[in-house]
Amino acid sequence: MFGATGYSGFELVRLLARHEGAKKPLLFGRNGESAYKDLSEAYPQIAGNGGFPFETFSWERMKGAGVDVLFLATPHEFSRELAPEAIARGWRVIDLSGAWRLKDADHRAVYQFHDADANVAAKLDAEAVYGLPELHAKEIKDAELLANPGCYPTSIILALAPWTQAGYVDKAHGVICDSKSGVSGAGKAATAKTHFVEVDGDFAAYNVFGHRHMGEMLEQLGLDGGSLQFTPHLLPIPRGILSTIYVKLVKAMAAEELERSLREFYAGKPFVRVFGTKLPQIKYSRGTNYCDIGFSLSPDGSRAVLVSCIDNLIKGAAGQAVQNMNLMFGFDEKAGLQ
Amino acid sequence: MFGATGYSGFELVRLLARHEGAKKPLLFGRNGESAYKDLSEAYPQIAGNGGFPFETFSWERMKGAGVDVLFLATPHEFSRELAPEAIARGWRVIDLSGAWRLKDADHRAVYQFHDADANVAAKLDAEAVYGLPELHAKEIKDAELLANPGCYPTSIILALAPWTQAGYVDKAHGVICDSKSGVSGAGKAATAKTHFVEVDGDFAAYNVFGHRHMGEMLEQLGLDGGSLQFTPHLLPIPRGILSTIYVKLVKAMAAEELERSLREFYAGKPFVRVFGTKLPQIKYSRGTNYCDIGFSLSPDGSRAVLVSCIDNLIKGAAGQAVQNMNLMFGFDEKAGLQ
Amino acid sequence: MFGATGYSGFELVRLLARHEGAKKPLLFGRNGESAYKDLSEAYPQIAGNGGFPFETFSWERMKGAGVDVLFLATPHEFSRELAPEAIARGWRVIDLSGAWRLKDADHRAVYQFHDADANVAAKLDAEAVYGLPELHAKEIKDAELLANPGCYPTSIILALAPWTQAGYVDKAHGVICDSKSGVSGAGKAATAKTHFVEVDGDFAAYNVFGHRHMGEMLEQLGLDGGSLQFTPHLLPIPRGILSTIYVKLVKAMAAEELERSLREFYAGKPFVRVFGTKLPQIKYSRGTNYCDIGFSLSPDGSRAVLVSCIDNLIKGAAGQAVQNMNLMFGFDEKAGLQ
Amino acid sequence: MFGATGYSGFELVRLLARHEGAKKPLLFGRNGESAYKDLSEAYPQIAGNGGFPFETFSWERMKGAGVDVLFLATPHEFSRELAPEAIARGWRVIDLSGAWRLKDADHRAVYQFHDADANVAAKLDAEAVYGLPELHAKEIKDAELLANPGCYPTSIILALAPWTQAGYVDKAHGVICDSKSGVSGAGKAATAKTHFVEVDGDFAAYNVFGHRHMGEMLEQLGLDGGSLQFTPHLLPIPRGILSTIYVKLVKAMAAEELERSLREFYAGKPFVRVFGTKLPQIKYSRGTNYCDIGFSLSPDGSRAVLVSCIDNLIKGAAGQAVQNMNLMFGFDEKAGLQ
Repeated sequence: MFGATGYSGFELVRLLARHEGAKKPLLFGRNGESAYKDLSEAYPQIAGNGGFPFETFSWERMKGAGVDVLFLATPHEFSRELAPEAIARGWRVIDLSGAWRLKDADHRAVYQFHDADANVAAKLDAEAVYGLPELHAKEIKDAELLANPGCYPTSIILALAPWTQAGYVDKAHGVICDSKSGVSGAGKAATAKTHFVEVDGDFAAYNVFGHRHMGEMLEQLGLDGGSLQFTPHLLPIPRGILSTIYVKLVKAMAAEELERSLREFYAGKPFVRVFGTKLPQIKYSRGTNYCDIGFSLSPDGSRAVLVSCIDNLIKGAAGQAVQNMNLMFGFDEKAGLQ
Repeated sequence: MFGATGYSGFELVRLLARHEGAKKPLLFGRNGESAYKDLSEAYPQIAGNGGFPFETFSWERMKGAGVDVLFLATPHEFSRELAPEAIARGWRVIDLSGAWRLKDADHRAVYQFHDADANVAAKLDAEAVYGLPELHAKEIKDAELLANPGCYPTSIILALAPWTQAGYVDKAHGVICDSKSGVSGAGKAATAKTHFVEVDGDFAAYNVFGHRHMGEMLEQLGLDGGSLQFTPHLLPIPRGILSTIYVKLVKAMAAEELERSLREFYAGKPFVRVFGTKLPQIKYSRGTNYCDIGFSLSPDGSRAVLVSCIDNLIKGAAGQAVQNMNLMFGFDEKAGLQ
Repeated sequence: MFGATGYSGFELVRLLARHEGAKKPLLFGRNGESAYKDLSEAYPQIAGNGGFPFETFSWERMKGAGVDVLFLATPHEFSRELAPEAIARGWRVIDLSGAWRLKDADHRAVYQFHDADANVAAKLDAEAVYGLPELHAKEIKDAELLANPGCYPTSIILALAPWTQAGYVDKAHGVICDSKSGVSGAGKAATAKTHFVEVDGDFAAYNVFGHRHMGEMLEQLGLDGGSLQFTPHLLPIPRGILSTIYVKLVKAMAAEELERSLREFYAGKPFVRVFGTKLPQIKYSRGTNYCDIGFSLSPDGSRAVLVSCIDNLIKGAAGQAVQNMNLMFGFDEKAGLQ
Repeated sequence: MFGATGYSGFELVRLLARHEGAKKPLLFGRNGESAYKDLSEAYPQIAGNGGFPFETFSWERMKGAGVDVLFLATPHEFSRELAPEAIARGWRVIDLSGAWRLKDADHRAVYQFHDADANVAAKLDAEAVYGLPELHAKEIKDAELLANPGCYPTSIILALAPWTQAGYVDKAHGVICDSKSGVSGAGKAATAKTHFVEVDGDFAAYNVFGHRHMGEMLEQLGLDGGSLQFTPHLLPIPRGILSTIYVKLVKAMAAEELERSLREFYAGKPFVRVFGTKLPQIKYSRGTNYCDIGFSLSPDGSRAVLVSCIDNLIKGAAGQAVQNMNLMFGFDEKAGLQ
């Protein structure tokens, strides 16, 4: 595993350490070596649990240790570079970055990838599986290259998919997604935007009409750019996302019917909790792998406001990666995630 | 003044104490007597500034002290009861509650007022002036009963008025207002919803399709219920409101044109800062009487996202009350608000 | 179990639900009936895990369900009343309140207990075991009535015990404990002191020279009132305690010697992490059952500052209760606490 | 003025802009030029107040504008370099850094100053006035080089000076200062220590037995290193300091006597509020230039716990600088600070 010192990477190490079917992960620094000897230097939280040493990376070391899957909790450029070689050498890869999530070249353009071998990259772009287990469980089972979804898209796609697939949503009118995320979503880099004094007591919108997560949402929901608006905001909390989603229905509906549609869609899916007409809050799913979904309906039944919540580091990153690993390797879907 | 121990009331005392044209306000407890001898017992913050004693209320005391205006920072039921008598006795009243803001009886219905004299109440409902100085400066000058606007409506009406009045907004399509407020907006009462452990790290929507501030917005913007959606959320911060407002334009427009429209509308208005296509954040207006307004425009020029910010206790309550007092009594509009 | 709706009680339910050796706990309301049908109404966090229904309390129901131990996460008056009867009927009791922690009648006086049967109470006062596993593992094994320690005392006793027992601490000079706790330590009741707007951005000392946790510390450390000073403070965070403890040593010592003393004292104790001369922070132990202990030594080796951290709801309450249960019923000490 | 983009510097600009006797300050970038054209780019908070442009620095520009005093809100190295030249050219200087606060060369050693001219530096070290107005008002009036005190020392010296000067404090026993500061005290640089995700919900001690503010406290209180212990902690709040100070009295005293001593010491000092045996909290002095002081006394009258609070950016930096300016230039001491 690469990227254990980031927020998602650390969360992933914690989850894997508690997973009964998984061995303790091998940790590699992105430059071959890490600045730390042991992950507990960066995160004293996990001291006392037997040690999580960083090792010098080599493919031989991976082979010698019997590693089955390579986790990449790294920037997309790094994933774009390393994944092709890992796949070529026979490893399965679970990538938490945005490197392999997009099928449409126009959508990929915002990332400005520089690929060593364009043909190989194109083949992997086509073969990579978008790892949202509630929508793609079958493909995930056999995935060689698993593209773990973005945090915002997870909260939005899971809320919208049942009604867009059922044809309830007036796409021509347009859907508006007003999302709010905790600061860990901005990563571990210390910047003016993440300074405590700047964030505490504040709240702000950013990247309106220009967030690079748009492509994922459009592809997964079968929408075009004109029919989905997405506005991310920065919440003064460490973790959690709440998305408030405004839809016009193609015809007036009853709340019961809409709730039933959600419940049926997610029947048997252990990590979506349907709240019906009660609304979830960020704290309910904090620290869990759940996506919580509820809604309010206008008195005339024509407009609905969906509210969905996830923990951006778990269901929005590391937890979903473990859920995907469970499906890929035949574990119980919930293993290590309770 | 009644209601000094609430968050808005305390802010009002602080502002009046710094106002060179105003005398230190007389403080009355709602039950005639207050539980406190001096406001500094409830708010040690203001100790050392000469004392803010509570007095026993009587109309004679008011007359004897030469009071010109009665501030009510009290629940709407109390304002509904006391304002008619104060007006009848010749005082001008600035009321910070929702008691006198609405002209439409249907809109008033949500408050379930019980009036001692329905005729007097109806007359005052008609005569009361909605105290948004940027829209109603003329009427405010002569107001006997000034209804200070709600905090959410202030942030939303000021953002939308320029473009709705200019005819730019597609009302049939509908406007969506996604607002987020700090906890002081919920008042000083200690409840499960305001407990630190419940609020910290959390975020939630509430009263979707059912907030009682809707009436004010509709009346002031000339919209009907079907064309405006309003979703309030609770932010884990003490004070400040940010509203994210989604509008479809009747035709594609250039950002420059839209910005110019905002700037012209607010030319000469000292308490609205137009940010143009930069977006304001809550911290910029915190502690001030400013309403900050900015927007983003979709690449095709057909849809805009307005973002407006205020401090809910100042421009959304006490500061606006002082601004109204300034207009009513011929002070400089900015007096005491710098 | 009584008291599941409080913060410690809820944490206890969560821990027991994950404990492989324990059955899901029976939940009772303090008045026989609870205001809730299921704990997920008060804490939607745990929805989706099979239900945690409240039941009508009766001793028969306890017997019928094969309950081995009664947890009381209730106010001390309630514990003082119910524990004697439970013991008399043959149940073992783990009480999280301050009801049974004190051996010295003078120390108990601050609680002003009103006991139905003074003789029975006196007998139980004498028999009750103070449930700090790192100090009293042997007695805990056979305890009928287990008094789970207070949160502040846990953080302070564990830090001081090694050096006071070794005779390193100058008791005549006096020890100073400057402790800081998150707001959940003040309980779930909504009060002016726990209102978000009052707490956020603030920090305060309280109950200086008068906190009722003093008795526990003195008894467990073998100190008298003159030789220990304790000042609690309220931190604007939900959970966690950090205690800064100032000791004068009887003679100048080397840091290595002091560190070795701590390490030897806690060898084989899974829930104390000795940081040596590095200092722990609240976040390291948050969400865990660890007590983290570190120290700094003055250049001349004569004075030391100990810093200890715990999660007040886990090692300071629910986690320690589970740890005690593990010892009482022969489980692995770490069961359910990883 | 240099350093306007830092937290203290920005606060200073705000205070000077409201000061009726002071002209709007000239702003210079440390490298001659600033990265910003106007301070409102770094702090949109102050937009709409007429502009705060950065200028190219030159001594001629200062002279042409009729500048009387040079404020340095800059790192101590910069102050150490620029102040001598400014003084030589005839300007009075108010320096907010630690450059000129210390008389004792041993205390200065921790800063490792590199002076261009050691003789000039030594002369200024001797002449510089420590700008704590409550202790040194007379010397401040005529100061050429004013060394504005550190934030921690301000909170501690003001609390301790009355009793140490009165001879009440047992110096041989030792005084313990356990201080807690908001994050702005760590400056505006974005680091791992100031990242929101790292700070929020956390609390930590740092620099135990090694903080460079020790020298100021010892010199001002007339203590030696062995008789004062100082432990700073980082609070998860933006601003404010609370110091909890433990003293043993040379003989048992009554609370009334101790309180009277504080009140007499600060009679006529407008910026110290004596709380007596009530304890101040950080929020009381937040946003003000007050230092609030209270205490608790042990039942036997032999030990006292002093609690003092300030806003680290105002009384601990910019406000105190303005207070010093007022004294130096004959303004009312409170001008611009209400």
